Amino acid sequence: MLAARQNHLRTAFDEAGIDALVVSSLPNQRYLTNHVGTAGIAVLMRSGCHLLVDPRYETAVRDSQASPQACPELTVHLVQGSYDDALVDLLMGLEAAAIGFEAQHVSVATYAGWTRRLGTKSEILRPTERLVEARRAVKDLFEIDCLRRAAAGLDTVAEAAFEAVAPGVTEREVAGVIEAALRAAGYERPAFDTIVASGPNAALPHHRAGSRRLAVGDLVVLDFGGVLDGYCSDITRTVSVGSAGAEAQRLFDAVSAAQSAAVAAVTAQVDASAVDRAARAVLEQAGLGEAFGHGTGHGLGLEVHEDPRLSRTQAGVAQPPRPLAAGMVVTIEPGAYLPGFGGVRIEDDVLVTAGGCELLTTVPRALRACGR
Amino acid sequence: MLAARQNHLRTAFDEAGIDALVVSSLPNQRYLTNHVGTAGIAVLMRSGCHLLVDPRYETAVRDSQASPQACPELTVHLVQGSYDDALVDLLMGLEAAAIGFEAQHVSVATYAGWTRRLGTKSEILRPTERLVEARRAVKDLFEIDCLRRAAAGLDTVAEAAFEAVAPGVTEREVAGVIEAALRAAGYERPAFDTIVASGPNAALPHHRAGSRRLAVGDLVVLDFGGVLDGYCSDITRTVSVGSAGAEAQRLFDAVSAAQSAAVAAVTAQVDASAVDRAARAVLEQAGLGEAFGHGTGHGLGLEVHEDPRLSRTQAGVAQPPRPLAAGMVVTIEPGAYLPGFGGVRIEDDVLVTAGGCELLTTVPRALRACGR
Repeated sequence: MLAARQNHLRTAFDEAGIDALVVSSLPNQRYLTNHVGTAGIAVLMRSGCHLLVDPRYETAVRDSQASPQACPELTVHLVQGSYDDALVDLLMGLEAAAIGFEAQHVSVATYAGWTRRLGTKSEILRPTERLVEARRAVKDLFEIDCLRRAAAGLDTVAEAAFEAVAPGVTEREVAGVIEAALRAAGYERPAFDTIVASGPNAALPHHRAGSRRLAVGDLVVLDFGGVLDGYCSDITRTVSVGSAGAEAQRLFDAVSAAQSAAVAAVTAQVDASAVDRAARAVLEQAGLGEAFGHGTGHGLGLEVHEDPRLSRTQAGVAQPPRPLAAGMVVTIEPGAYLPGFGGVRIEDDVLVTAGGCELLTTVPRALRACGR
Repeated sequence: MLAARQNHLRTAFDEAGIDALVVSSLPNQRYLTNHVGTAGIAVLMRSGCHLLVDPRYETAVRDSQASPQACPELTVHLVQGSYDDALVDLLMGLEAAAIGFEAQHVSVATYAGWTRRLGTKSEILRPTERLVEARRAVKDLFEIDCLRRAAAGLDTVAEAAFEAVAPGVTEREVAGVIEAALRAAGYERPAFDTIVASGPNAALPHHRAGSRRLAVGDLVVLDFGGVLDGYCSDITRTVSVGSAGAEAQRLFDAVSAAQSAAVAAVTAQVDASAVDRAARAVLEQAGLGEAFGHGTGHGLGLEVHEDPRLSRTQAGVAQPPRPLAAGMVVTIEPGAYLPGFGGVRIEDDVLVTAGGCELLTTVPRALRACGR
């Protein structure tokens, strides 16, 4: 599996004009070598791979390399001092005419340090962008299995959340119930800060969970997910506290229709912007175009936000096509937000297939009246 | 408060040779403007400040600016498309001879985009490093109050954790109890992924929490913290499942002595490396020098790891002095890890004062026998 991923990435070396790639992104390192940690640098060669880790990871890497999940042809270097010094030492000894680095994951300060230490040899460095991310966007069978399980496990978590929603309960308490349910369902950790946004807070797309107490008539946006075997799930359901009023129901129905339209638009070869347009058109027709201020979705994998982005095409800007491909896993999450009133967002995770898509999240999505 | 922070930062403009600073780091933006979000760019001028945010934050920023916590002289720009385009548009119109940017928070790719769009005007950009971070290392009274409350609130969380530790319980279940207790104690969210490392896993300093079931005789490292009003707390306690064996007790006593020595060494003006040395000397005397592979502590504030770092001086490398200052808040967390056997880490949060330090965490630290 790792060998296949590495070899697939190596096919991009010629086009990028490189003989090796310094991988600074931690999720990219995990994808290529199985190294899990908060520090590390990998260098993928045309043949073999180097991994720099500090002593905190010595035992973990040794155990992993002794397991069936071992990374093939991996040379592990234990870093005692600075990672950048160790990397420069390694690069000085490599026989490579051109070495790529991840320009989006290396800071101007770090790069300046590398070039200062490399001296004239710094000429061999080549900026690259999203070489690993582009490959990570299309999941392999192992990843699809992980993502399918990570999404399916949210059923019991959602049920616990729905039961916790009641008048007088704080947003933060509901978030606590969700996170305990994630743990109980076997998730390693929440995939992101759980969002419980009630009443007027539901109009703030990136409100987290605060001290506000839920009240009858509130719309409550519940946006949560868990990490299972390293892979993320991400779901949003909107419920009401007690029966929803007419305006809340109208908002919900419009977002629900937009979400269904977007899901129906997903299939291999279709452009990411077309999926966004499908959702946006429904909301515009309902007079809610202005109320939908974010993109329709994003890729999901080792990171909770990754390629592809299902966003609108910027007006007047020529952009390259962004076709979806079978094996991509993306969220579909349109929303509508009315300042002062509240908001609705509905989000599912889907696997793109040759003929459409497979819904990975299975939580019922009707506007449920909770706390009665 | 914000005005004082901004003015303090402006005193660094002359030395850095800049008239304005592009602030890309989100914690730095929060520190200077109160903007809380996952996106944004601030530009601090010699007079006034610009904040670029996208429509997700429109309502939140407007409400904040209408509150007593308003940022003085703030001009808010709503970003409809790309942040980098909006920033370049803003910079093109500024009358500034030299504009600093945060070289550690701007990627090589982002910087290349800025210079391409700025054309000849890109000459005015100047890399800077840690201008805001250096000021954030010394907390103001508001921050000290937040950090004190964030640390003190861990008492009930630790008690819940100690009660959850028992034979047969999984690490993940204990982590779930800790996170629920954090919410119940009023924390916004965990400050980092909770660590519950038991038995041989306790020898892995950065193990998180897995499916291993606790067993009698295990040492269990519990490392957790919560965010309160934006500020982080971070504590580690090590307990045993049932009575600790002689070897476990010996390990614990050595780490406990090392931690006490380090706490005793903390005072304004002392070098950060001297605090590390105080802990390390005790462990070396106990024959555990090799078993302590990480630094002794780190600053704590809006981020869970920030300046200063209480790490050892690299052998043979001349380093500038790193004196502690009154008002810094740091963790003191030596540990010792014996592969295959287990490990101990003890961590407290302390406020550096003119004559020593004040312990902010108040959880008892004796080796507690849990689950009996």
